[in-house]
Amino acid sequence: MFRADGPSEAALPRAAVPPPDMRAIEAAHRRLRPFLRRTPVLGRSSLDSDFGARILFKCEAFQKSGSFKARGAFNAVLQLPPDTPGVVTHSSGNHGAALALAARNRGFPAHVVMPTTAPDVKRAAVRAYGGLVTACEPTLAAREATAERIVRETGAVFIHPFDSTDVVAGQGTAALELIEDAGCRIDLLLVPVGGGGLLAGTLIAAAGMSPATRVIGVEPEAADDATRGFRSGQRQPQVLPVATIADGVTAAMSEMTFSVMSWLAADMVTVSEAAIVRAMRLVWERLKVVIEPSCALPLAAILEGKVKAEGLTVGIILTGGNVDLDRLPWTISPAS
Amino acid sequence: MFRADGPSEAALPRAAVPPPDMRAIEAAHRRLRPFLRRTPVLGRSSLDSDFGARILFKCEAFQKSGSFKARGAFNAVLQLPPDTPGVVTHSSGNHGAALALAARNRGFPAHVVMPTTAPDVKRAAVRAYGGLVTACEPTLAAREATAERIVRETGAVFIHPFDSTDVVAGQGTAALELIEDAGCRIDLLLVPVGGGGLLAGTLIAAAGMSPATRVIGVEPEAADDATRGFRSGQRQPQVLPVATIADGVTAAMSEMTFSVMSWLAADMVTVSEAAIVRAMRLVWERLKVVIEPSCALPLAAILEGKVKAEGLTVGIILTGGNVDLDRLPWTISPAS
Repeated sequence: MFRADGPSEAALPRAAVPPPDMRAIEAAHRRLRPFLRRTPVLGRSSLDSDFGARILFKCEAFQKSGSFKARGAFNAVLQLPPDTPGVVTHSSGNHGAALALAARNRGFPAHVVMPTTAPDVKRAAVRAYGGLVTACEPTLAAREATAERIVRETGAVFIHPFDSTDVVAGQGTAALELIEDAGCRIDLLLVPVGGGGLLAGTLIAAAGMSPATRVIGVEPEAADDATRGFRSGQRQPQVLPVATIADGVTAAMSEMTFSVMSWLAADMVTVSEAAIVRAMRLVWERLKVVIEPSCALPLAAILEGKVKAEGLTVGIILTGGNVDLDRLPWTISPAS
Repeated sequence: MFRADGPSEAALPRAAVPPPDMRAIEAAHRRLRPFLRRTPVLGRSSLDSDFGARILFKCEAFQKSGSFKARGAFNAVLQLPPDTPGVVTHSSGNHGAALALAARNRGFPAHVVMPTTAPDVKRAAVRAYGGLVTACEPTLAAREATAERIVRETGAVFIHPFDSTDVVAGQGTAALELIEDAGCRIDLLLVPVGGGGLLAGTLIAAAGMSPATRVIGVEPEAADDATRGFRSGQRQPQVLPVATIADGVTAAMSEMTFSVMSWLAADMVTVSEAAIVRAMRLVWERLKVVIEPSCALPLAAILEGKVKAEGLTVGIILTGGNVDLDRLPWTISPAS
């Protein structure tokens, strides 16, 4: 049996959550349309020449709240009844900000449990959208206990960052739009993988809309639970401590996201920290889009030769752009 | 009489060049469509709330060659006969790279005269598009003499960065698309001004398509020839040395661009260096678009209260994203 001992949300004891189907993703897309952006799909011929591939970037860094997480959060929150007393999550990253924005839209309070160690910039993002930050000790037990206490005391609804049917259906709408807007068949879709919500949504959308498209998940070498799980057929814990610049993908998978990956992913690969930094910088330089390190995983996989892209049309979801401009990896340690 | 003593291309002795009309801009747009990108128009509700205005950003940082300069360069080069022996310009910036790309598209050699003091990254950009860099001493006389020698020796056609009917018609297509894609009336268009090619094209497009739109040009305080000229009614030289972070807007206007500005601009304003850096960073943080300092002039004008944006729909052309990621202004000297 899987025994969680990592810091990830996958360790929450909870009943198995069913994955969404294609109709749920389509319904999410209709539901989200008035509230979120249809982000542009960009390409660069200079990058295409360098890699001998056609690479299409779906720019979720331009999404409301600065990441694709708004899709899942809005899809969950928009389905709550109007008298919902609030929502709660624990997240040190983009899901907290996205949930705060979605809740503000409905007029619900949003409680975001964040460890005392979370950077100020992340707390500020949650507060900027009207979220109520509750500090807790930086342990999973403290995060869970604090979130549970808020549920008990306020009646707020817990919205998990990825182990949620509605959240995964929302995340799948990014791939839906990318496939619709590509203007040609996408041979290969590369997806950054943390808890696996985006991967699961993408896999289901691709299976439903474009079954010939192969979907491959990409992880940092330093946070490779999904890849190990894919190879072994058994869900794996994250090995601690997780030391990667890609701070958006340190969670371990849930039962649900693991099962969707096992069932539908064509492959899973890992990339080095140096390749992540090189790929991140390459996107800034060539695509002119500010992306956070987690977004750079797919291009890093091409750079390092972990996936063969030559001759293919490749879709990449640039998941988010919430990065501290004072602490860019190449100004801290020149890894490229 | 105007006596040029600055480093700018406006100092070239040349016959007065006629400005394009609206039909020339529309023709340019049809001509460019198969070759260039219709760049997205992005907005951010958080910026809108901060400024009490609706701000629409036309993202020319995503344009081919990384700046709007591809519009003018392609419009000029696409009209040359097929047996043209080459093109030549002198430019230490985006026009050189754009011209190289446009010429490669036609199979013409592109000669770009660059001073020996130009940064390696700029030379690399020209070369990446197949441009032939000819080094010269860092004086206007040397740049002109070198370009003239290349014209004499090779028969190449000189394409001026802004004192050209075709180039200005091409630059006007950015505003044409912005006005078409805005989905509502734009009250105010803010344009960075160096030599004035983009300003002239924007003024003509706005006058033709949306006469109720006021167009205001924005310059750095340290490179304010256009603003002084607008106030005095006489074209003014740039005061040397020009010390601004906005290295894309250090040229002085030509007779043609000056006359269009005098005739059609609603106003001209200047902004401080500190405001440019703050605005640049704000665009990176909120819009997630990598822009070079020159692009930040319009938002800096709103930040500093040089233009009143409150209650208005404001269009801003983010002109380009060619910036040295190792030398970001806020990592060099924290001005924000």
